[in-house]
Amino acid sequence: MVSTMKLVLLSALLLFSLQSVLSVAQLRFQHPLDPLTKEEITLVQTIVQRKYPTSNNRLSFHYIGLDDPEKDAILKWESIKPTITTVPRKALAIAIINSQTHQILIQLQAKTILSYNIHKGNGWGAIGPCTIGGAGQGGLKGFSIDDPRLLSWSRQFMEEKDGKSSSMISPVGSDFSAFVKVVCSPFTLGWFGEAQSRRTVRVECFMKESSPNIWVRPISGLTIVVDLELMKIVEYHDGGIIPVPTADNTEYRLSHQKPPFRPKQHSLATHQPDGPGFQISGHSVSWANWKFHIGFDPRAGLVISLASIYDLEKHKPRRVLYKGYISELFVPYQDPTDDFYYKTFFDAGEFGFGISTVSLVPNRDCPSNGTPLLIANAVCVFEQYGSILWRHTETGIPNESFAETRTEVNLVVRTIVTVGNYDNIIDWEFKTSGSIKPAIALSGMLEIKGVDIKHKNEIKSDQHGTLVSANSIGVYHDHFYIYHLDLDIDGVYNSFEKTSLKTVRVTDGSSKRKSYWTTESETAESENDAKIRIGNPAHPLLTDDDYPQIRGAFTNFNVWVTPYNRTEKWAGGLYVDHSHGDDTLAVWTIKNRDIKNKDIVLWHVVGIHHVPAQEDFPIMPLLTTAFELRPTNFFERNPVLKTPSPKDVHWPGCPN
Amino acid sequence: MVSTMKLVLLSALLLFSLQSVLSVAQLRFQHPLDPLTKEEITLVQTIVQRKYPTSNNRLSFHYIGLDDPEKDAILKWESIKPTITTVPRKALAIAIINSQTHQILIQLQAKTILSYNIHKGNGWGAIGPCTIGGAGQGGLKGFSIDDPRLLSWSRQFMEEKDGKSSSMISPVGSDFSAFVKVVCSPFTLGWFGEAQSRRTVRVECFMKESSPNIWVRPISGLTIVVDLELMKIVEYHDGGIIPVPTADNTEYRLSHQKPPFRPKQHSLATHQPDGPGFQISGHSVSWANWKFHIGFDPRAGLVISLASIYDLEKHKPRRVLYKGYISELFVPYQDPTDDFYYKTFFDAGEFGFGISTVSLVPNRDCPSNGTPLLIANAVCVFEQYGSILWRHTETGIPNESFAETRTEVNLVVRTIVTVGNYDNIIDWEFKTSGSIKPAIALSGMLEIKGVDIKHKNEIKSDQHGTLVSANSIGVYHDHFYIYHLDLDIDGVYNSFEKTSLKTVRVTDGSSKRKSYWTTESETAESENDAKIRIGNPAHPLLTDDDYPQIRGAFTNFNVWVTPYNRTEKWAGGLYVDHSHGDDTLAVWTIKNRDIKNKDIVLWHVVGIHHVPAQEDFPIMPLLTTAFELRPTNFFERNPVLKTPSPKDVHWPGCPN
Repeated sequence: MVSTMKLVLLSALLLFSLQSVLSVAQLRFQHPLDPLTKEEITLVQTIVQRKYPTSNNRLSFHYIGLDDPEKDAILKWESIKPTITTVPRKALAIAIINSQTHQILIQLQAKTILSYNIHKGNGWGAIGPCTIGGAGQGGLKGFSIDDPRLLSWSRQFMEEKDGKSSSMISPVGSDFSAFVKVVCSPFTLGWFGEAQSRRTVRVECFMKESSPNIWVRPISGLTIVVDLELMKIVEYHDGGIIPVPTADNTEYRLSHQKPPFRPKQHSLATHQPDGPGFQISGHSVSWANWKFHIGFDPRAGLVISLASIYDLEKHKPRRVLYKGYISELFVPYQDPTDDFYYKTFFDAGEFGFGISTVSLVPNRDCPSNGTPLLIANAVCVFEQYGSILWRHTETGIPNESFAETRTEVNLVVRTIVTVGNYDNIIDWEFKTSGSIKPAIALSGMLEIKGVDIKHKNEIKSDQHGTLVSANSIGVYHDHFYIYHLDLDIDGVYNSFEKTSLKTVRVTDGSSKRKSYWTTESETAESENDAKIRIGNPAHPLLTDDDYPQIRGAFTNFNVWVTPYNRTEKWAGGLYVDHSHGDDTLAVWTIKNRDIKNKDIVLWHVVGIHHVPAQEDFPIMPLLTTAFELRPTNFFERNPVLKTPSPKDVHWPGCPN
Repeated sequence: MVSTMKLVLLSALLLFSLQSVLSVAQLRFQHPLDPLTKEEITLVQTIVQRKYPTSNNRLSFHYIGLDDPEKDAILKWESIKPTITTVPRKALAIAIINSQTHQILIQLQAKTILSYNIHKGNGWGAIGPCTIGGAGQGGLKGFSIDDPRLLSWSRQFMEEKDGKSSSMISPVGSDFSAFVKVVCSPFTLGWFGEAQSRRTVRVECFMKESSPNIWVRPISGLTIVVDLELMKIVEYHDGGIIPVPTADNTEYRLSHQKPPFRPKQHSLATHQPDGPGFQISGHSVSWANWKFHIGFDPRAGLVISLASIYDLEKHKPRRVLYKGYISELFVPYQDPTDDFYYKTFFDAGEFGFGISTVSLVPNRDCPSNGTPLLIANAVCVFEQYGSILWRHTETGIPNESFAETRTEVNLVVRTIVTVGNYDNIIDWEFKTSGSIKPAIALSGMLEIKGVDIKHKNEIKSDQHGTLVSANSIGVYHDHFYIYHLDLDIDGVYNSFEKTSLKTVRVTDGSSKRKSYWTTESETAESENDAKIRIGNPAHPLLTDDDYPQIRGAFTNFNVWVTPYNRTEKWAGGLYVDHSHGDDTLAVWTIKNRDIKNKDIVLWHVVGIHHVPAQEDFPIMPLLTTAFELRPTNFFERNPVLKTPSPKDVHWPGCPN
C-alpha cells in the first residue's frame, strides 16, 4: 500500500541559485514554523544583492533560513490558530561579503532588512556546496589553476593492478580539471592554536579510475591548502609517494558486480489495507495520539517541532517537545600525523546537515509503505511494526488462563545526510506509549589513509587505524551527535530531575538482607547540576586542552540543560569553520544559570567510538545508536491500556 | 503471507504427566540436539518409576531434558551426517525421591540407567509447575488445608470501592480453596545465611475479585511459609491489616474495557509474495546465509545451536556459535522489609524458563508473517524489515552522482517466558551481515507492595519503590539475564581478545594535536583476564557480602570467559532453590583456568535496573535491552556487498 503525498521541504538546496526576482507573488507557507519557500529564499537573495550588487562586491551566501519566531508568538498561534500574519515571518542570512561575515535579518512580508551585523570574532560559516562542488568539479575548478606548484605536480601515483603489476598515472598537462582520473575535495582545517585563521580548506585528492569508490582510494602524503577568499593555493607540500590502494574489491554498485549474488532475500512489503494511519497537512503530521511539525533548516536538516501527545485520561493533548534537532556532529579522527591530524570535522556547522541531506531511494532507504516527499525525496514518513506494545499471559488464576497482548506500530520520520564519505541515517521514532526515540545509523565509506603496508604482519608501529584492505588504513575516529531538545512538558516552565541509584547497607539487623538500592532524586538548580557524564554512550578521549576538544567541548558531558535562549542553537558555535571554541555549549554554561522551573533545553550527546573493521570495507554495514525519551510518571497510568491492536489483515482468497 | 510449519517443541510441558507406557515404539527425532520427544520423556518417567514405584515412594520430577551429547560426537555428526545412532541419545532426570534429590542419567535407546547420583549439597531443583499450580489451585490445594492457623485466618481485607467506601472480605469457613476471591502463589525463599535449608516456599496471596490483575492486588503483611516436603505451613504471621489496592483501573483485557478505545492503529501486515525466505526441516533452520538449530530445554527454554554463516569469498559455511541460551535470570527486589526482602528470584533455576514458556498469540506476539509452532505456539520465526543494510549517495564525483542502497531483512526467532507477573520476550535476531543480536523485552505486571498511602505527598520515608497507584508501591528491582554463548568461531579452539581505547598525549611536538586515542588489544590468557565490567548494561548494586549477591555473583561482571565444561551450564548453579552460591560462575572461575586457544564459552550479563513508573501500571509497556555479536575482522570484507535488495513488491492492479 503505497500512498504518496507532497511536501516541499528541500528548498534549502535552492540557496545558492542566485536569481533576481524582485517581486514575490505569494508566500506559500501554512505554519509559521514552515521552512522558507523557494520564493522567500529568492527574496532574501534579492534584497541582499540590491544592497551589495555583485557587480562591485564579492558575495556568497552561507546560510539562508527561517529566523526562529518568538516562542510566545508560536504558542499563541498554536492555541488560537489565527491568520498567519500574526507571527512575523523573518529570515536570517549569513553571507560573506568582501571577506567579511555579515549576519542579516530580513522581514519577509515588509521585504526590509531589520538588522545587520558584521561578525568580528573567530570562525566562519559552513563552507557551502558551491565551494565543495568547486573543488570537486573535475579537480580544482574555481581555484587558481595556474598555481606553479600545481603545474609542476608531476607526482606519480603507484597503483596495484590485478594484485601484481603497478601503473603510473600523471596529471595531464596544466589543465588540472582535464585530469579526470583524480577527484579532489575540500576538508575543513579546524584550529590548532593560531591567533587568527584565514578562511582556508585543505584539499585531498582521490583516484577515480576503475572504481567509483573514491573515498577508499586517497592519494596520501600530499598537502594542498587553499585560501577560499584568495581562491589560491597557499600551502603545498608533497610528502613522497605512498601507494594508492587498489581499485579491486572497492566497487559496490550492484550493476557493476559479477554473480553470484548472495544471500538472496525474499521480497517483503508492508501491506496497509486501510492506508497509512498518519495524515500530513502542509508540514504538520498527525498520527495515533501524536501531532508534530516537520521543519527543515539548511544547517540542522530535519527539525521536529511542537510535538504533543493526546492524554486519554485528561482528555487533552499535552505538549512535550517544542523543538528537537541535531545541533552538531563532531567527528575527530585519531591520527596525529600530517595526513590526518586536522580531520576534526563539525559536520553540521562546517558542511551543513540540511545542505548535505540526500534524496531517499524509495523501497530501499525507506520501506515500501514509506512516503518520500516529492521534491528531492528528502524525508520519508512511515509506520513500522514495532513488536509488542505490552502483553501478559495469566497462568496464576485457577481455571482462568488467558493471554492479552497488543501489537505495537510506530511512526518513523527519516532523513539521510551524506557528508562526503559518510551517510548518516537519522530517524525520529514516535511510539503511542509516549516515547520519542531518536536513532542514528551510519553507513557509507571509511576515511582511508594510504600506507605502504599490504598485510597485517608488516605493521610495526601504531598506524592509527585498522588495515582494512591492502595499503588501506581505516583511521580511528569518533562520531559525536548532539541533540538540541527543547522539551516543553505541559508548558514552557520545566525542571530537570536527576535520579540516581545508591546502595544502602543494612547494619541495624532490621532485615535479613545486608544491602539494597534505592533512588535519590535531585532537582537541578543551575546548569552545573545538570551536567552528566554517562559511561555509555561514548564520551570523548581527547585531552581537555587539545584544540579539537576545546572546539568540541560540548561532548564533555552526555547531558546538559540550559535555560532557553533563542541564540543558543548550535552547540559548537554559530561560526564553526576555524572556530576557537569560544562560542560552545561548554562556554555558555560557565555562567551556571538557573534552570529550575524555567523554560529549559536538554542537550544530549550520543556517540560511537569507531574502530574500523574489515567488514566496513569497501562500504560499511550499519552502525547504530539510539536513545529513548520515555514518559516517567507523566501519565497517570499506562497510556496505551485502551489501545486496541490494529485489525488483522485478511488476504483475499486465503482462509482467515 | 502466512506460512505454517510444524515443530514439536514444547514437550517439556508433558514432563509431569506420569504415564506408565513401558514400550516406546519410535524415537522420533531427526537431529541429535532435538529436544526429548513426548515418548522419550514418558520413557524416562517409566524407567525411574519402575525403580521407585510410587506405591511406596514419594517421587516428583524437577527436570527431564536431553543430556548434552559430547561436542565431538555432534561435530562429527554435523560433518558427515551419518545415521542418528552414532550419537548416543541420553536423558537427564532430576527427581526428588523421598526428600532426596536424585540425578539420573538414562540411555534412551538401551532404556537403561547409566548413572545415578544423590545430591548432598545445598540447593534444590526448580519448584516446578505442579507446586506452582498446587498453590494456585483455588488457594492452597495440595497443602495441608486443616492447619489451625489457616483455619483461624479471619483476617479482613480492606478494599477501596469507587474510591471512597471500603468493604470487608473474609475467608469462607475452613475450605480455603472455596475462598475464590483470593489466589495464592508460591515464591522461592532464597538463602539468608542459614546453615541448612529445608525445601520451603513463601506463599503470597492476591485478591482476584473484580479484576483478573491479581499481581497488582497483593494482600500484604501476611507471612505464610510452606514446607514442600511436609506439605505443611511451617511459619505463619499476620503483620496487621494493610489496604489491598483497589481493583479500579487494573483491568487490562480489551473485552472488559469501556470505550473510547484510542489511539487507533491502522492495520499493517508484512506481505511476502514469494513466501518466507527461510526453510525449516525438523528443528533446523536455513535462512539467507545462516543455518542453525532450535532446541528447547525445560530449564533454559529456547536453545540456539550450531549456527553457521556462509562466506561468499571462502565458498563455505563458517561455524560461529555452538550453543547459545539464557543460563539464568536474577531478579533481586530492593526492599529490605519483611514482605519483600526474600524476593531475590532466579527465574531459570527456581522456576524454569522452558516450563514457563507461554503460547504466542498469532498476529499479536508475532507479526502476521510469523510462523507459530503448532504445539502450544512456543516459538515463532519471522522475517522483518530491518531498515537499511548499507548505503551511499555519491556527490563527490563531478557529473556522476548516484545512490546505492540495499534493504535489510532480518530473521527473528522469538519465544516468551512468563514467570508469574513478568513476561520476558526473548528474541534472537540474525543478520545477513553476520551479526547475531539477542534482545530481551519485558512486559507484564510490576510486583506490587500494598501500603497505607494513597498520594505521593503522604510519603514520609523510603517506600523502596514508586507509588504507581493508590496503596500500590511498584518495588525497585533488577533483571539480570546471563547468556551462555558457546562461540566456536571457525572451529572449537578460540581465544578472547579484549580491545580497549586509550588516550595518548603528544608531547614531542610531532603533531599540532595534543592527543589522540588508539587501541590496545590483549589476548586473555586465563579467566581473570576476561572478567569485564561494563558501565552499561547495568551492574549490580548489592554489596558483595549480601546473601542474594553471593548467589547471584555471576552478575559481578558483564563479560566472563570460561573453558568449555559440559557441567558448567547454569551460571547460578544446578540446584538454585535455597542455594548458597557455592556452584556459580563466580566460584568456577576462581580456578582462573587457561582460556587461550581453548574451547571457550562467553558469558554475557545484560540487565535493567527497574525503577517503576506510573506508566508501568496496571501493565507495563515494553522495556528492552539488547546486544550484538558483530563480526569484526572475521570476513575479509563487507559480507553483504553482493547481497541484492529483495525484489520490490508490486501490488496487483496498481501502477508499478
